[in-house]
Amino acid sequence: MSNQKQFNVAVVGATGAVGQNIIKLLEERNFPINELKLLSSARSAGKAVPFKRSEITVQEAMPQSFEGIDIALFSAGGEVSKTLVPHAVQSGAIVIDNTNAFRMDPDTPLIVPEVNMDQMNGHKGVIANPNCSTIQLVAALKPLHDCYGISKVIVSTYQAVSGAGVQAIEETLRQSREVLDGHEVKPDILPVGSLPKKHQIAFNAIPQIDKFEENGFTLEEMKMIRETKKILGDDSIEVTATCVRIPVIYGHSESVYVELKKDFVMEDIRSILTNAPGIVLQDDPKQQLYPLAVNAAGRPDVFVGRLRKDLNHMRALNMWIVSDNLLKGAAWNAVQIAEYIAIEQK
Amino acid sequence: MSNQKQFNVAVVGATGAVGQNIIKLLEERNFPINELKLLSSARSAGKAVPFKRSEITVQEAMPQSFEGIDIALFSAGGEVSKTLVPHAVQSGAIVIDNTNAFRMDPDTPLIVPEVNMDQMNGHKGVIANPNCSTIQLVAALKPLHDCYGISKVIVSTYQAVSGAGVQAIEETLRQSREVLDGHEVKPDILPVGSLPKKHQIAFNAIPQIDKFEENGFTLEEMKMIRETKKILGDDSIEVTATCVRIPVIYGHSESVYVELKKDFVMEDIRSILTNAPGIVLQDDPKQQLYPLAVNAAGRPDVFVGRLRKDLNHMRALNMWIVSDNLLKGAAWNAVQIAEYIAIEQK
Repeated sequence: MSNQKQFNVAVVGATGAVGQNIIKLLEERNFPINELKLLSSARSAGKAVPFKRSEITVQEAMPQSFEGIDIALFSAGGEVSKTLVPHAVQSGAIVIDNTNAFRMDPDTPLIVPEVNMDQMNGHKGVIANPNCSTIQLVAALKPLHDCYGISKVIVSTYQAVSGAGVQAIEETLRQSREVLDGHEVKPDILPVGSLPKKHQIAFNAIPQIDKFEENGFTLEEMKMIRETKKILGDDSIEVTATCVRIPVIYGHSESVYVELKKDFVMEDIRSILTNAPGIVLQDDPKQQLYPLAVNAAGRPDVFVGRLRKDLNHMRALNMWIVSDNLLKGAAWNAVQIAEYIAIEQK
Repeated sequence: MSNQKQFNVAVVGATGAVGQNIIKLLEERNFPINELKLLSSARSAGKAVPFKRSEITVQEAMPQSFEGIDIALFSAGGEVSKTLVPHAVQSGAIVIDNTNAFRMDPDTPLIVPEVNMDQMNGHKGVIANPNCSTIQLVAALKPLHDCYGISKVIVSTYQAVSGAGVQAIEETLRQSREVLDGHEVKPDILPVGSLPKKHQIAFNAIPQIDKFEENGFTLEEMKMIRETKKILGDDSIEVTATCVRIPVIYGHSESVYVELKKDFVMEDIRSILTNAPGIVLQDDPKQQLYPLAVNAAGRPDVFVGRLRKDLNHMRALNMWIVSDNLLKGAAWNAVQIAEYIAIEQK
């Protein structure tokens, strides 16, 4: 990659859980970087973050931070993106936004590289990274949709606390120790930092991720529903989601029921998933082999198992999908998009 | 209850997680006991268990243990029940069996008192207590089935480790501390004590409860499927289940999608569930109120929340059902059945 173009890259939210993983991946993947600019809120500015053999001081993200930047990766929350992404685009940067701010904007492609790179064409400076739970779902659904057409999806999630940020991880570990030591548990962050009620996450399951909408679904559930249709490019797919936080640190798991439009045999489903990009099939009940969050953590793939034909619906199957929510669910998907941009522009 | 008949009661599996709860409930409910006989494996025999103001020494369960016993509550595993229940019946006891041994036997009623007490009639000495995950599911489904008819159920479970016994609880607590302390985790019991492969449960989600059947479903999943149809008395209901163990100590949670046969409005569903026996509706998204395992633990009720009309299917709804798997899911349901027997025979 020695003769290729070098890029000025900005990471917004550089001290967060996803930002840290993006920086690590840019280094590991030897992304063609000329200058790396690390940006954050005023609170985190001034911190030194190791990169390659030196350190980079984090600066406060401001409208003028993006001058000369070619690619800006945002993951500092929807409000920051709404405010600063237009300035980054104005400055000529291509933005890969990991928040909910632009995902459903018709002008913004919502991209999972293995699934819908064709939708990248004609972007207007912003490419959105889907919600973590959606990414791993559509990665597994896409090859089935291509072969059979999907009519209905019912998904229940088992989501890791790291999806709610570093503070939620710390809270989960602290609460776990409090329970083990027989101390009182004082919930502080989860389920939603900005809402008044807090619930214990240690040794519990909380059926709320993000705020509730008027229809009784949470925003996280509606993200899965809306984004799945947009990414698969088919509004006719019926999607129902129930999103649940459980005391896992890294790795979202999903129990998924899928109805297809055509008859199938399980052997073909296995073969299709085995050959699908980004998918690792882990499915051998006799060996008690199936995807597990603790094994998926730190790996870039989407793991699929517990594949079985439904007992009632001829054209339905069930499966268990697991992936590291900070990697394929966020940082890795964003860096993959950045790599495509780099290749296109070299 | 002073003039009523006093019963000779045997508890088989008296030192187990469910057995201990049965003994506690018999005491709390002031069950009309003449003599309480506590039985276990040879390994646990000799232990002293407190009951009321004294202690009872646990004896080894043998074929001749049931002489003079009126009611025998079994929860020492399917193999023990298969061997000893016939002897207990032979001795004239009415058996309430909390294992899988007789549940699908056509001669054995499978009873959730709030749901199908009418099926008790004509039992042949054995009444089966359903699987814990099934009990809380059918308790919430029954009033809807009565009003609208249920055509389809898709359930994903979030099951507590106490369902796998005292050793699984100890393992979960031990592993959690190992993770927090940065030590290596050595799985020993879960997912299935009798199978070779072990998986970490601390900060993980394991999509296997009990052994796999040939069709790719686990036995736990098939129990939910078969038992739901039997208890609701309707083989035409399509049931799909995915059963998952998560690091919760007490309280199973369930994400449930239900298709009804008739149109409905959510207001009526709420009203029906509010008035249903054994059900507590906890459903106020604005107040972030929904059932939580840590709140359900130690309580006898089945908690229902996250009620919402499906966005795709006119006649479908989604809900979240939580109950203490050792109480309504096991010991309390068994003691409820025992109380009905006591009232009938007084």
